[in-house]
Amino acid sequence: MTELRGVPVSASRLSLSRIATVLDANLYGIVHGGTVMRMIDETAGAVASRHCGGRAVTVAVDEMVFLVPVHIGDIITCQAQVNWTGRTSCEIGVRVTAQPWDRADEEPRHVASAYLVFVAIDENERPRAIPPVIPETEDDHRRFHEAEIRRGTRLARREAILRSRERARPR
Amino acid sequence: MTELRGVPVSASRLSLSRIATVLDANLYGIVHGGTVMRMIDETAGAVASRHCGGRAVTVAVDEMVFLVPVHIGDIITCQAQVNWTGRTSCEIGVRVTAQPWDRADEEPRHVASAYLVFVAIDENERPRAIPPVIPETEDDHRRFHEAEIRRGTRLARREAILRSRERARPR
Amino acid sequence: MTELRGVPVSASRLSLSRIATVLDANLYGIVHGGTVMRMIDETAGAVASRHCGGRAVTVAVDEMVFLVPVHIGDIITCQAQVNWTGRTSCEIGVRVTAQPWDRADEEPRHVASAYLVFVAIDENERPRAIPPVIPETEDDHRRFHEAEIRRGTRLARREAILRSRERARPR
Amino acid sequence: MTELRGVPVSASRLSLSRIATVLDANLYGIVHGGTVMRMIDETAGAVASRHCGGRAVTVAVDEMVFLVPVHIGDIITCQAQVNWTGRTSCEIGVRVTAQPWDRADEEPRHVASAYLVFVAIDENERPRAIPPVIPETEDDHRRFHEAEIRRGTRLARREAILRSRERARPR
Amino acid sequence: MTELRGVPVSASRLSLSRIATVLDANLYGIVHGGTVMRMIDETAGAVASRHCGGRAVTVAVDEMVFLVPVHIGDIITCQAQVNWTGRTSCEIGVRVTAQPWDRADEEPRHVASAYLVFVAIDENERPRAIPPVIPETEDDHRRFHEAEIRRGTRLARREAILRSRERARPR
Amino acid sequence: MTELRGVPVSASRLSLSRIATVLDANLYGIVHGGTVMRMIDETAGAVASRHCGGRAVTVAVDEMVFLVPVHIGDIITCQAQVNWTGRTSCEIGVRVTAQPWDRADEEPRHVASAYLVFVAIDENERPRAIPPVIPETEDDHRRFHEAEIRRGTRLARREAILRSRERARPR
Repeated sequence: MTELRGVPVSASRLSLSRIATVLDANLYGIVHGGTVMRMIDETAGAVASRHCGGRAVTVAVDEMVFLVPVHIGDIITCQAQVNWTGRTSCEIGVRVTAQPWDRADEEPRHVASAYLVFVAIDENERPRAIPPVIPETEDDHRRFHEAEIRRGTRLARREAILRSRERARPR
Repeated sequence: MTELRGVPVSASRLSLSRIATVLDANLYGIVHGGTVMRMIDETAGAVASRHCGGRAVTVAVDEMVFLVPVHIGDIITCQAQVNWTGRTSCEIGVRVTAQPWDRADEEPRHVASAYLVFVAIDENERPRAIPPVIPETEDDHRRFHEAEIRRGTRLARREAILRSRERARPR
Repeated sequence: MTELRGVPVSASRLSLSRIATVLDANLYGIVHGGTVMRMIDETAGAVASRHCGGRAVTVAVDEMVFLVPVHIGDIITCQAQVNWTGRTSCEIGVRVTAQPWDRADEEPRHVASAYLVFVAIDENERPRAIPPVIPETEDDHRRFHEAEIRRGTRLARREAILRSRERARPR
Repeated sequence: MTELRGVPVSASRLSLSRIATVLDANLYGIVHGGTVMRMIDETAGAVASRHCGGRAVTVAVDEMVFLVPVHIGDIITCQAQVNWTGRTSCEIGVRVTAQPWDRADEEPRHVASAYLVFVAIDENERPRAIPPVIPETEDDHRRFHEAEIRRGTRLARREAILRSRERARPR
Repeated sequence: MTELRGVPVSASRLSLSRIATVLDANLYGIVHGGTVMRMIDETAGAVASRHCGGRAVTVAVDEMVFLVPVHIGDIITCQAQVNWTGRTSCEIGVRVTAQPWDRADEEPRHVASAYLVFVAIDENERPRAIPPVIPETEDDHRRFHEAEIRRGTRLARREAILRSRERARPR
Repeated sequence: MTELRGVPVSASRLSLSRIATVLDANLYGIVHGGTVMRMIDETAGAVASRHCGGRAVTVAVDEMVFLVPVHIGDIITCQAQVNWTGRTSCEIGVRVTAQPWDRADEEPRHVASAYLVFVAIDENERPRAIPPVIPETEDDHRRFHEAEIRRGTRLARREAILRSRERARPR
């Protein structure tokens, strides 16, 4: 099987922005996590499909942190890029910022970060090989390395939980 | 009354992007004009509020053209900026582009253009003075000039229609 | 090519009404222009399809004015009719009124007017001939005439802008 | 307590119309009962509030029949009027019709009928007296009479069910 | 024609729950009847399809009562089951409860009850035979019996209204 | 400061269910991750608020895995419970299952699992102490222990990434 040709990070990078409305708010009047999650998934999914040259599905959210609240009327911007690629899967990093829709003089606030794992699938929904990503900037290289740390932690955690269940099993 | 200090075009320029879904399609499966209109109004309204430093309302759509169809799955991008300012009103120009959400190798298509007039209002809903816009690039100057042509045409058209009604009135 | 038989204005006239909810409001609690634009486009599109006997697409909004604000809880009514027809295109006029949903004793307020140009298309998305409209009342005749003024102004404006760009071009 | 002055049926009669979209369809592609129910409730609620001069809440749906399916792309029209009034409650009748949005030559089909009971409430959510309705046409009188039959049947049914429970109770 | 084999009530019983949001509220801030109606129809439709082993459509709402208001933030739960079956139709009973989403210590309030009639249809939209329901508990038997009372009342009411129209007809 | 009294897991456990519609599907016709994420966040948020006796906000998604696709027409069920509590934060575990809405004879499929961390906040948006959770069943105890593993891994990962950035910093 021939190796697919590498594709630079910048080729699939994408940014989506929209204004949060009353529809996005939870019962306390703050934009709720679920709205931001959906927007993160949408942006990351588009980047994954652009990189993989076809359909890719979310298999895991590896980490997602919410730093400060998002308000109704904020312009929410999701910037997403391929951080890391394996043979059939990739990690997409998403940075979410927000700023009041009618204020040009305020810096966007960093409100959330997320790391999602996608798997490319073929028409029979089986995993298929994807092109390796080519990090370009120093930040791209740092992100690639940190994705490997997250991947290592994820596998170690799964292992630890399985071992713990093993021990708990009655004999 | 003191003149408000000028604000450059770039200070309020804004771009919003989202992926068109089945919710945005008309009964023929194409994204319908009304969806694009609403997104245009939203982006232009944000630019107007950013420039005017507060609330501004749409008073007219001076021209809006739809060039090619937008499809479900397209990333729709609205880029808006202040083209022209009067004492209490301004013209916002919006350029709309679209490209398939999962294809990084296709150029965005120019799908629509629109020119909207906003009026800044105070807390009593009365028009209030706004800062003059400062065109920066050659394109900004061209847009300022063309906005004046549109404004002239709009006033002439109103005049022509009023005269025509006058003539038609029974004596 | 044979001429299509004329169709009277009244045959395709249409009125749609609905109650504005919190979903239609902008961040100031007023129904925003974009909501009304979408409803205008929907009503006008239905009238154009009814007149043309098949698919028709919005190609331009020639003029759209917003007179007074629409509030949450208002019954918004869009009345649309064919004002003018060319060989493959037509102008649809829309009058928008609003009144509080729970008050039978208040007159509907005239809140917006719009003039949209549609082109009828065949299954290959190419323009196709449409039946000429037959104005019936005095108002229909006035609207037909005013549509011709708008059309003239639109062509003149385009001409003026092209000339202006021509002059600006560096030699 | 003084009697409130009568209000004719025509004073609060209301008709709302909108085009059914893919959002209104059930999983078989037909507009589902629940969508029509919600539109019926909205129109009837507006008529009840208009007649009662203030807030009124749905307390019962006395009868609702669905005759033929509604399709995506149909213009759904709900015509509602006060059929009958008691001291604090009223019956609102709703007739629902549908016709393809792009066909001016088809008669609207009668797709559903419904009879809802509303109670007018004051600011403490307690029932309050409402003006008696004044039937105007022969149809209005027929509807008033049939509402009384429905009311009689509803009370008789409740009685029959309570008696049946009484008999079933172990001694 | 062979009789279809009976199916117990418990086999198709279903409960759906969701949190009411600002989108579900009427203009007084209370969840409006239409929202609850739509949820009732959805749950009942699923139960009817589960019992009938295929497509079933709402033909009538026989009775629907709203007891106390539902608020934004309430968890609305619809519990539905087959109460009665005829040859091609069945009655589905729905009990709706509500409780504040963030309070574990409050009992759910009984907010509405509804009885809907569905007819099973085949691929040509013609009624088709359905399995008889088998009541299991004492409550199931009571519900079966009360459904027969409702059915009797419905037919009697229709009869009374037809007779009344007959008498009113001019000779 | 006095310790808050413990609250058993079962007191705040919650299950929400709804039918996935065309609105929830991505551009491939499968229910997209973002829809499930939003529903997970909503259910977990309700459980957190119920346990904490007031407002709680999502601060992190610790792990979220998607096992098999969810289809339009599936009944999606989110079961959530408090797995673990710290002084001001808690882990909520969510198990998501799906089954066709019209099939009573199919077992629900396990489609996703998620672990979210919430922090309880007071009216000034500052963290506040919450009652400790009391695991009841053997499964509750296993979940409590596994939540501690996840927490350990999360802290270790953060540490590893910070060290990696430290090393990368130019001197």
